[in-house]
Amino acid sequence: MKKLINDPKNVVAEAVAGFQAAHPDLVRVSQEPTYIVRRDAPVAGKVGIVSGGGSGHEPLHAGFVGVGMLDAAVPGPVFTSPTPDPILAATQAVNGGAGVLHIVKNYTGDVLNFETAADLAAAEDIEVRAVIITDDVAVKDSLYTAGRRGVAGTVLVEKIAGAAAERGDDLASVVRIAEKVNANVRTMGVALTPCVVPHAGEPSFTLAEDEIEIGIGIHGEPGRERIKLEPADAIVDRLLDAILTDLPFASGDTVLLLVNGMGGTPLIELYIIFRRAAEVLAAAGIDVTRRLVGNFTTSLEMQGASVTLLKLDEELTELWDAPVETAALRWGR
Amino acid sequence: MKKLINDPKNVVAEAVAGFQAAHPDLVRVSQEPTYIVRRDAPVAGKVGIVSGGGSGHEPLHAGFVGVGMLDAAVPGPVFTSPTPDPILAATQAVNGGAGVLHIVKNYTGDVLNFETAADLAAAEDIEVRAVIITDDVAVKDSLYTAGRRGVAGTVLVEKIAGAAAERGDDLASVVRIAEKVNANVRTMGVALTPCVVPHAGEPSFTLAEDEIEIGIGIHGEPGRERIKLEPADAIVDRLLDAILTDLPFASGDTVLLLVNGMGGTPLIELYIIFRRAAEVLAAAGIDVTRRLVGNFTTSLEMQGASVTLLKLDEELTELWDAPVETAALRWGR
Repeated sequence: MKKLINDPKNVVAEAVAGFQAAHPDLVRVSQEPTYIVRRDAPVAGKVGIVSGGGSGHEPLHAGFVGVGMLDAAVPGPVFTSPTPDPILAATQAVNGGAGVLHIVKNYTGDVLNFETAADLAAAEDIEVRAVIITDDVAVKDSLYTAGRRGVAGTVLVEKIAGAAAERGDDLASVVRIAEKVNANVRTMGVALTPCVVPHAGEPSFTLAEDEIEIGIGIHGEPGRERIKLEPADAIVDRLLDAILTDLPFASGDTVLLLVNGMGGTPLIELYIIFRRAAEVLAAAGIDVTRRLVGNFTTSLEMQGASVTLLKLDEELTELWDAPVETAALRWGR
Repeated sequence: MKKLINDPKNVVAEAVAGFQAAHPDLVRVSQEPTYIVRRDAPVAGKVGIVSGGGSGHEPLHAGFVGVGMLDAAVPGPVFTSPTPDPILAATQAVNGGAGVLHIVKNYTGDVLNFETAADLAAAEDIEVRAVIITDDVAVKDSLYTAGRRGVAGTVLVEKIAGAAAERGDDLASVVRIAEKVNANVRTMGVALTPCVVPHAGEPSFTLAEDEIEIGIGIHGEPGRERIKLEPADAIVDRLLDAILTDLPFASGDTVLLLVNGMGGTPLIELYIIFRRAAEVLAAAGIDVTRRLVGNFTTSLEMQGASVTLLKLDEELTELWDAPVETAALRWGR
């Protein structure tokens, strides 16, 4: 295992310290318990939004803390849920008196620990609501979930709900919008290589030199099937076929297309994928009006990618376009 | 070799098509000859800025085309200079009557082909000046260069010269500023793994499971030395020692610190590196006032990183802070 790290047990603490050093204009960091909040938190009268989960998916979630998106991110150990303590502390730190939304990817540990933190916050009279993200169409249940997993669609929920909170929507309205995004977003991914969790030191699974995993999870959990390596276009067609028939998306729909890298795939390949996805959608009569390409929800150095479609309407488009100022997404200001 | 591509010989054409599909709000693309221009090119009365070089370093250069940075990018085949024809065509396409600056990384093929294109443009009465980027402190000459190589510091030249052109500076002034950035910027990198050029299908070099290459070039050219893998902090200290003693940087200096990923290294590791670099600079009395972390000048899926320092003054800081709107850098608008 070759990584640019020091002691594996200090990876998250050192990365969080680096995040603070790199983005003092955007965030403040707490080390014990570990969380990241936007610099001006808490914002009085604004719904606070907290997300989090295991580390190793950067820039998710810390890279999305800032004006117009998350108020706080709570990074657990690599691929391991944060405990309730830092989630509670982050919830307190962003409580501006209008309630707090927890955006939680659907993994058993995350759901449980966010629930416990919400109960503890309620005991302090902080109103907390949770929205569970379930955008991965690949599998119904998996190693770490009952029901569908939350993957790259989480970024879209965070951006759009964040814009609603920023414009002053109340908690019920921000929850409604987050649930609406989750109901209309679908993702499927592919892995070419596994990744190595630093404290494990070994790949979490193996793939033969000519094998890929269709429907991979963001922790390397099994997907739908292992197949021989195919041309990129054939792979994209597989992913989109699963996505399009799921919602289902239909001719005349307006969508946001996100092509997300798993961390170790070069950007030049992500654009090759984007090209094919745009072609397939055009042929299906689906209008791509918003676009995003890059590494947003990663699995350490895993080679692979995911394709996400969000069905848009006027409300979601307007919130997507609203200004955002974070380390990993920034526009309009 | 596992990559998300189709036919290796179509990699650049398909990626460029994907870039157009992903960023219609920012750019227009020409396929034959292949170049990318900002959507509103040519801008009358503005100095045009063209950069380019072999593909495989994305987002460099296409990701930096847009308002406040490059007017055009000319991608050659992977790790291979573009020929004079597309460079000439891009130069013509961005000529707004105020002359054109070529920003050229110092590799023999790039320098020669940009020179030929400049001669051809001069024959059409387009005034062209070139600035050659030489920020890599690792080696004096290399496989592909006489003199120092141009690496991640190129991004800083493109941003700052782009801001000068955007505010209306004339060609001589934009050249002066680009040369000033190049004179004050220093970079050194490290590789943990090689990368595979698609049409070659094999790694361009090999590293043992416990070996790293200090001073790597962005095409995998040899650096200063191969050593056993060390903790990240020790590696950062080596890179910074070479950089700091080169300019030299001194206590009291104000700098921009860029930690750049080579493509396959997770963001969490780049922040660990940033943290150490910030610590070392603070101890040396050097004030980091501007910061950038991410994958900006890559080598396909290579695992590794580089550290870049730019000595700032008021003029460079103001130009760095100016609005920019490109696929890979965006702020202030």
